[in-house]
Amino acid sequence: MSDAQIAPKDAPFGIVIHGGAGVRERAEMSPELEREYRAVLEQTLAAGYEILKRGGSSLDAVEAAIRVMEDSPLFNAGKGAAFTNAGTNELDAAIMDGKTLKAGGVGIVKHIKNPISLARLVMDKSPHVLMVGEGAEMFAREQNVELVPQSYFYNDRQYKSLLERRKLEIPFGGSLKTTSGLISPGEGDSRLYGTVGAVALDKAGNLAAGTSTGGRVNKKPGRVGDSPIIGAGTYANNESCAVSTTGLGEFHMRLLTAREIPVLMTYKNMSVQAATDEVMLRRLVKFGGGGGAIAIDRQGNIAAQFTGNGMYRGYVKSDGKTVVQIYKD
Amino acid sequence: MSDAQIAPKDAPFGIVIHGGAGVRERAEMSPELEREYRAVLEQTLAAGYEILKRGGSSLDAVEAAIRVMEDSPLFNAGKGAAFTNAGTNELDAAIMDGKTLKAGGVGIVKHIKNPISLARLVMDKSPHVLMVGEGAEMFAREQNVELVPQSYFYNDRQYKSLLERRKLEIPFGGSLKTTSGLISPGEGDSRLYGTVGAVALDKAGNLAAGTSTGGRVNKKPGRVGDSPIIGAGTYANNESCAVSTTGLGEFHMRLLTAREIPVLMTYKNMSVQAATDEVMLRRLVKFGGGGGAIAIDRQGNIAAQFTGNGMYRGYVKSDGKTVVQIYKD
Repeated sequence: MSDAQIAPKDAPFGIVIHGGAGVRERAEMSPELEREYRAVLEQTLAAGYEILKRGGSSLDAVEAAIRVMEDSPLFNAGKGAAFTNAGTNELDAAIMDGKTLKAGGVGIVKHIKNPISLARLVMDKSPHVLMVGEGAEMFAREQNVELVPQSYFYNDRQYKSLLERRKLEIPFGGSLKTTSGLISPGEGDSRLYGTVGAVALDKAGNLAAGTSTGGRVNKKPGRVGDSPIIGAGTYANNESCAVSTTGLGEFHMRLLTAREIPVLMTYKNMSVQAATDEVMLRRLVKFGGGGGAIAIDRQGNIAAQFTGNGMYRGYVKSDGKTVVQIYKD
Repeated sequence: MSDAQIAPKDAPFGIVIHGGAGVRERAEMSPELEREYRAVLEQTLAAGYEILKRGGSSLDAVEAAIRVMEDSPLFNAGKGAAFTNAGTNELDAAIMDGKTLKAGGVGIVKHIKNPISLARLVMDKSPHVLMVGEGAEMFAREQNVELVPQSYFYNDRQYKSLLERRKLEIPFGGSLKTTSGLISPGEGDSRLYGTVGAVALDKAGNLAAGTSTGGRVNKKPGRVGDSPIIGAGTYANNESCAVSTTGLGEFHMRLLTAREIPVLMTYKNMSVQAATDEVMLRRLVKFGGGGGAIAIDRQGNIAAQFTGNGMYRGYVKSDGKTVVQIYKD
């Protein structure tokens, strides 16, 4: 008997997704492009919702949702990954099971089409939590995972972003506002962010979180960001909530952003919304950082918070009503 | 004017070190060998104490102390690093500054004599928090760090441990009690552990933590453990305490052990000793894990807790009295 069969018929479930905080300014967003973004976000939600609705696990829903965004060139993950300062693509991802606290992550993989699925295999089929580089790819081959050449990840938008940064000698972590002037990480820049993530609650009451990214443009080769780090970019715990973050990873790694939201729920009795607001809008900003986070708790309450002009995001809950948003409004 | 000059003359300071939980059983520990262990632990404490006494920073004390243990073949870090299942040595380390929450870590580096010093450079001289593999070594070359061949890390004790494990087909994470029978990770096995770490409080009231390891014997190439992960194996925050852990890293990564101890101090108002006991003796054990942790708070209160038969450890505080211990008593 599956979990779905024993779950009450009206058990709440839901999935929240993000495609990165810091979105194109409205002037740079054509109606056609906005439609493209919205279409992929809707497709992502549908992939997760179908699994949850039929009683599938939150882990499966998170993985399926993230694969859709990884396969789109619009987001900085999988196909649309950003470039390192050496002109290579090095991808990070992680997934975590809120029921068992099992987790899997991969760092700086260069030939993996869907890093979220390799992270899942690290969790399910290896004794490890984090595998990186060539060792992670050796493990992928053992597991018959599809490998792709680096050229698979080439895309004009990301490569131009690297060239622009090199030309203007913008330091790592610095952001560019339209075509002039540096802005703080908190203000957001569509050419920097784009990490994708999903958090879900299934009918059996289990939470899961996942995150996948090409990493910050212009990073040094070998740099691992927050996405594959449990507690920094990805975290799930049935005691509190599931979280996926986006933004300049170095801040999340030092603040343990993805763990701090559940910590505030567990120890300060905050709601998922209050905890997410506290960490993202106060602590992270006070610390000089910026970005976004999504979260869901066991009752199906959700939060999506960010510091910049917007965050590609969406959710669908038990009622099947799909909501997709980009800007702050 | 340096911090030392403005600090009150009686400002507390101190350093706590570990050389891994799970020590050789008494029957396997000759008096000569015990003297060797104690001598290195004393030398380690002296290196840190001298810096703290003259008003140096806790970061400098932690780095200097860990370098001594990295240079000894007795511990599973630097010179004495364990082997992967491919027969290679891949080292992890991290350091964190409790004042600024700045942090640096390196993962699976193969040619770095003192990974703790490269972690310090990642913190001080790169925009990143974690760098791994060849990218981390490229950064090391840029920073004129001494590179060594893999043969530098060869040592009989660790290689025999790998061969024994291969022969008996002991799974990763499984432990061997003397020469027969698997034991739980919590019971300790000197051939598995040996990660080294240090936490310190300086006269200016700043905390720092550092950890360095060769990783668990028989790990897959590319596996990153808890030591270089901020919040898992290493954490420091002037608001609460500095922590370094040892044990099967995968458990610490899922529990966020090094962050959970300060969380309990901040949100549950526990003492550093009570928080360390709660996380190491109750939560970690309940979770099926084992190992050890050391911690120090801003008043100079210290904790050193472990689940097995012992932990190579020691401390020295403002009074200059050096204490070194190995077994539980």
